[in-house]
Amino acid sequence: MRIIGIDPGIAIVGWGVIDYNGNKFSVVDYGAILTEAHTEVKHRLKIIYDELTDILTKYKPDYMAIEELFYNNNAKTVINVAQARGVALLASTNQKVEIFEYTPPQVKIAVTGYGRADKKQIQQMTKMILNLEKIPKPDDTADALAIAICHAHSFRLKSLDYRG
Amino acid sequence: MRIIGIDPGIAIVGWGVIDYNGNKFSVVDYGAILTEAHTEVKHRLKIIYDELTDILTKYKPDYMAIEELFYNNNAKTVINVAQARGVALLASTNQKVEIFEYTPPQVKIAVTGYGRADKKQIQQMTKMILNLEKIPKPDDTADALAIAICHAHSFRLKSLDYRG
Repeated sequence: MRIIGIDPGIAIVGWGVIDYNGNKFSVVDYGAILTEAHTEVKHRLKIIYDELTDILTKYKPDYMAIEELFYNNNAKTVINVAQARGVALLASTNQKVEIFEYTPPQVKIAVTGYGRADKKQIQQMTKMILNLEKIPKPDDTADALAIAICHAHSFRLKSLDYRG
Repeated sequence: MRIIGIDPGIAIVGWGVIDYNGNKFSVVDYGAILTEAHTEVKHRLKIIYDELTDILTKYKPDYMAIEELFYNNNAKTVINVAQARGVALLASTNQKVEIFEYTPPQVKIAVTGYGRADKKQIQQMTKMILNLEKIPKPDDTADALAIAICHAHSFRLKSLDYRG
């Protein structure tokens, strides 16, 4: 199966596409959608939607894996990340890519076997599992690949189904 | 000028289209996009995007007026409203409708002349200004019309330009 992992944000959307067949991982491509700070939010949302749609059209993943979004201490950041996440979900739904979501502890356990692993440990394991020469930059891209691995490892596949 | 006011949400998106020409208001149409609670969020976002796009295509407003979103005490609600707001901004941008945003006190002052007016007072004034027989239901629709009036009354037009 082909999986795209997404780490959503308004300034950077990390993404990574991997194949997982017969217990073997291979990396297809990865990168980051960047939007500039001086650009209006509405235009940043359109850039994210359009570029993600292009990526989905090009690589045709079977599944999208994305982190659940939790409230942190910066209300403005959460609102903008959620707006970006909304258009990412829309892009995926419009391209008929099935969406699964995972909590940060689920990603940590799936990648390192340890629910309290730190960022560096997750990145090292992601590099090893995917047989990469170095840890992808920016961090958002490495995180996106970790989320994709989490989906591959998950045996209890759980559909994105929270109600608001 | 033709204005669409939007009150975004994941369960209900209130909308109201008005014309404002030569200091005279006329109501074009209003309503609410409803999504069912048992539906997955990704599908609710798609319903909101698709129905709003239909409304924008049908009525071709010059401007969209939408409330600024603030953090409240319910993190899950804020995240879902922000995801819905994100796809509403995308729909408007894709239809080339210019977006303006207003804070709740700006809407109150524009509609009632009083920054601490309560919901009932705003609804009564909205009904009077637009010469409606009764207050539109649900509240989200009445709120959307109030936001549209706010844009018409606003002389200091301010582009949606917050950075995250």
